[in-house]
Formats: sequence, structure tokens, C-alpha cells
Amino acid sequence: MSEAAYVAVDWGTSSFRLWLVDRAGNVLGERRSHEGMMAAGKLDFATVLQSHLEAVGAAPALPVVVCGMAGARQGWVEAGYVDTPARLASIPEHAVRVSGHDRDIRILPGIAQRDPRAPDVMRGEETQLLGALGVDAANDAVVCMPGTHSKWVRTRGGTVGGFATFMTGELFDVVSGQTILSHAVTGADDAQDTDAFRSAVMAAFEKPAFAANLLFQVRSGQLLYGGKPASAREKISGTLIGLELAAGLAGDVAKTGITLIASGRLQMLYQLAFVTVSVPVRSIGAEDAVRRGLSMAAQSFWSV
Amino acid sequence: MSEAAYVAVDWGTSSFRLWLVDRAGNVLGERRSHEGMMAAGKLDFATVLQSHLEAVGAAPALPVVVCGMAGARQGWVEAGYVDTPARLASIPEHAVRVSGHDRDIRILPGIAQRDPRAPDVMRGEETQLLGALGVDAANDAVVCMPGTHSKWVRTRGGTVGGFATFMTGELFDVVSGQTILSHAVTGADDAQDTDAFRSAVMAAFEKPAFAANLLFQVRSGQLLYGGKPASAREKISGTLIGLELAAGLAGDVAKTGITLIASGRLQMLYQLAFVTVSVPVRSIGAEDAVRRGLSMAAQSFWSV
Repeated sequence: MSEAAYVAVDWGTSSFRLWLVDRAGNVLGERRSHEGMMAAGKLDFATVLQSHLEAVGAAPALPVVVCGMAGARQGWVEAGYVDTPARLASIPEHAVRVSGHDRDIRILPGIAQRDPRAPDVMRGEETQLLGALGVDAANDAVVCMPGTHSKWVRTRGGTVGGFATFMTGELFDVVSGQTILSHAVTGADDAQDTDAFRSAVMAAFEKPAFAANLLFQVRSGQLLYGGKPASAREKISGTLIGLELAAGLAGDVAKTGITLIASGRLQMLYQLAFVTVSVPVRSIGAEDAVRRGLSMAAQSFWSV
Repeated sequence: MSEAAYVAVDWGTSSFRLWLVDRAGNVLGERRSHEGMMAAGKLDFATVLQSHLEAVGAAPALPVVVCGMAGARQGWVEAGYVDTPARLASIPEHAVRVSGHDRDIRILPGIAQRDPRAPDVMRGEETQLLGALGVDAANDAVVCMPGTHSKWVRTRGGTVGGFATFMTGELFDVVSGQTILSHAVTGADDAQDTDAFRSAVMAAFEKPAFAANLLFQVRSGQLLYGGKPASAREKISGTLIGLELAAGLAGDVAKTGITLIASGRLQMLYQLAFVTVSVPVRSIGAEDAVRRGLSMAAQSFWSV
């Protein structure tokens, strides 16, 4: 077995993921928990990290690179932002070292778009971008990173030019869970309804202004014509994703195609949505991307 | 004092309003409570109504006309729907009499749009339309009825041709109360921020596809530039109303102007929104409209 070179941590709002990595980038050990910023903030960030380091047998001198909400103001140590236009190569340069520890622990900054007409921030996604695109990607790219707060990013030659966050995932949660539509989805099983999803994507993509009406139709359609709770869920999901795509694909984006950074069900849904609106997609796994980004940062810090 | 001729009741999802009315349409007594369909369903509709009838001293023989959710399937007695195209004059004709009471109690039906591409229902608003437009309104009208579930209605010669429901009010509640934006509005006072509201209306009206992004900017803008919780609330409100207006005003509606049926804060906000997008508005109070509609139904039943 090869020797551990560093530890990589993706510390999000509600999740914690840690990898013990060797010089070649191979994963020697792994930890996952729900001790994200919200939970860890109530405990103690250092204690949470230490327990997972011990669990994978990380030596006391092994350095740690962290990305995500641990670097937010309400996180562990504030790691600030790199402002747009932001060179991806500059992300590791602005890492903040956690003081008071013998171990070398560094937290990567986020990216801020300080434009009063379109203020925006990301934290964690910049590391995925670094991993997915590299520091010197020559081509222009439009990157879609779906999630609770989906990010659409335009990059050119390894620099983030601008980006926009859409509350798509969070809207799905509250609309399907907390509004009158919750009655329509109650009891939904895991059944896919691809037709319902795709027609909802197309309807919202073509008429985004009608989003709040298309959502209500999930209820009125079920009232007048019946329908399964799982189909209602797919319609809500398709409507909100179609709305996001209508904005993200505005302009001439569709010609060059989209880089999709996502995993699991979101990857599947967004790929289906892009097929529905006839836009070519290059798909990259979100977890691969963040681990590769953390590795690139580790290499720049410690030449590992 | 004149003699009571009938009782008019607007029985909504979460509110109950009752008026004791004479032949000339004057209000002799009035009751308001939170015993809407949700609360009254758990008690007993007949008991709730009787207690308010007694409170205003309504004689046992006095007839009662009811509109709203009391006529829903999950309400008191199901009053069904009149299908579009729906003559407003036909609303009273399809009223359902509550059986098992000596007193003549009739519940007005809703209106259904049985179009699989745009299924929709209303219940209560048809009575406001009747009161606001009359049964033989000669002109075309586009009517905006804001609320938890805003209705946009097209009428021609006293007939409802089609309508669309927007979940604007309910989206405002969950977005400002249950998402990350709740942090941005926490502690908001009642201060108006007309500029914030109007610029949010215009931004969503011009770029409706970006609604989920404009909402997130309420948070990122506050993070990067600060701002008051009350302003954040006005931005959320303006974004969602602007999105609704972008759909409702699509086509050539703007030329003829809009009939707005609303009361209180909603009336003020929507009037401001229509001014912002330069569309003329004729404003009618929602409560006047529903009471007038109930009176017209009472006249057709009992010639009172």
C-alpha cells in the first residue's frame, strides 16, 4: 500500500466528505457524514475534523486541504472570495491557513461577483470547476452545476468570467413540501415519469414567465384529470429545471454545448432536460471534479 | 332601521366573512373570523354558520348565499364547477342547496377550465368577477385578482373565456419564510422600499426566465453589499409579482388595460407594479366585488 500524502475535505452546508490521498492521487481512505457547516458549527470544526482524521489513520503531520462552506463567515475560518474575473489557478493562492494547529490545514476561498446588478457568490463549486476544467483550459466553456443552488458559469482560458446562481433545488423542496402542491405529491413512489418531466421542462423552457402558473397546473390537472403523485413530483421538477435552462441557455450558448458537473439523480435529470431542449452536454461527475480540484490545490501547496 | 333580506357569506380556505343585507343592498350586520374551510371542516360547517347567524340576529327564515371553498369537495357541500366558456349569469343557476336545513342555504359553484394543456380551477373569484363586471358587461376585460393563488381572467360580454392561476402569494410565503432567503428578511419592519420593489418588478418582468436567479440575488446582494431586511422582503415580493405580470401581460393586453380586483396591501403593491411596467389599471375593491356578486346571486334566487 502506498503512503498517504495529504487529506482532501469537501465541507459543505450539510455534508462532510474526506479522502486520504497518496502522491499519485489514489484514494487510500474515505469518510462521509452529515457533519456539514450547520452541524459542525454547533459542535466544533476542529473536533469533527480530528475525529475523521483519526478514523482514517492520518498521521499528525499530514496536511489537509478543505473547500466549501467551512470557509464561510459563519463557518470555521473565513476564507474570503476571489473576485471575478477569477483565474482558477488563483484559487489555491488565496487559501487561508487555520491557525493554532501544528497540522497544516488550508481552506480554499470562494468566488464573488461584485456586480451590483448581478451580485453572486459561490463556495465549493470553484474547486469543482478547477478540477473539471483545469487551470489553463483553452476553450470557452459554459458550465452547469445543478443543486440546491445551481450555478451557471462562463469560463474562458481558465478564468471564471461570470456566473449566476439559481435557487432551483431549494425551490423544488419548498414547493413540493410546503405549498398546496404537497397534497399532489404525497405518497409519491420512486417511479420515473419521463414524459411528464420532459413536457414540463419544455413548457417552462418555452414560456418561463408562466412558471408560477405551470406549477399550479400540477394541482389543477390532478384535480380535473387525476394522476399519480410521482408524476406530479416530476412535473414540479421539470418546471423548475426548464425555468433554469431558459435562463442559462439564453443567448448563443446552445451552439457550443454545456459542461454538466453533477452526480446521481441530478445528473440524470439534467441530462434528460438538456436532451429535451436539444443541447449537447459533456458530463463530469461532481465528486470526481471536487476531488481533482482539491488535489490540484494540494499539489500547488505541498508539491505532492 | 331597514329589514334584513338575506345573508351573504364569503367562505374561503382560511377566512369566513358574513354580511346581513337588506333589499337595497345595505349591510346591517357583519362578522369576520378565521373559521375558513380548514378550521370549519374540523368543527362543523353548519355549527359555525349558525353561531354567526345568531350573532347578527338573523331570523330563522332568512336565506343564505355562500361562495368560496365551502363548496369544494373537501368543504361543506360540493358545489361543482361551471366550465369555461362560463357565462357569469350562469353562476347562480348552478348553485347547490344545502339539504337538511329549514333555512334556504345555497352555495355557488366555481369555474373550471377543462383544457388538458392548461387545466385550471377557481372558487370564490367567480363571485368577485360577477360583482365587479356584472352579468352583461359588453366590453372585453382582462382581470387580475392577486392573492395566495392569483387569477388572471379574460372575459368578453359577461363570459369568462379563459383564466390562469399563479402561485405568487404562496411562493412568496415559502420563499421568504422557508428558504435561505429567510435569513435575509429576518427582522424586517413594515418600512416600504418602493425603489427596491419597483426595480425587482422590472427585472423579473424583463427577464422572467431569471426568476430563480433574481431571488438568490436577494441573498448574495445582502452578503456583498448589505441592505435592510425590509428591502429584501420587497425584492422577493417584486420579483414574484414581476414574474406574474410578465405572463399575465403577454400579448396585446397592455393596450386595453387591466381590471385589478384587490384590497389592502396587495392592491397597493399590484398598482405600483402595473405603474412600473406602464400598464393602465382600473382598481376595484375585492370585498366590494364579492359582496356585490353575492347580492346579484341573492336577487336571482329570491328577487330580494
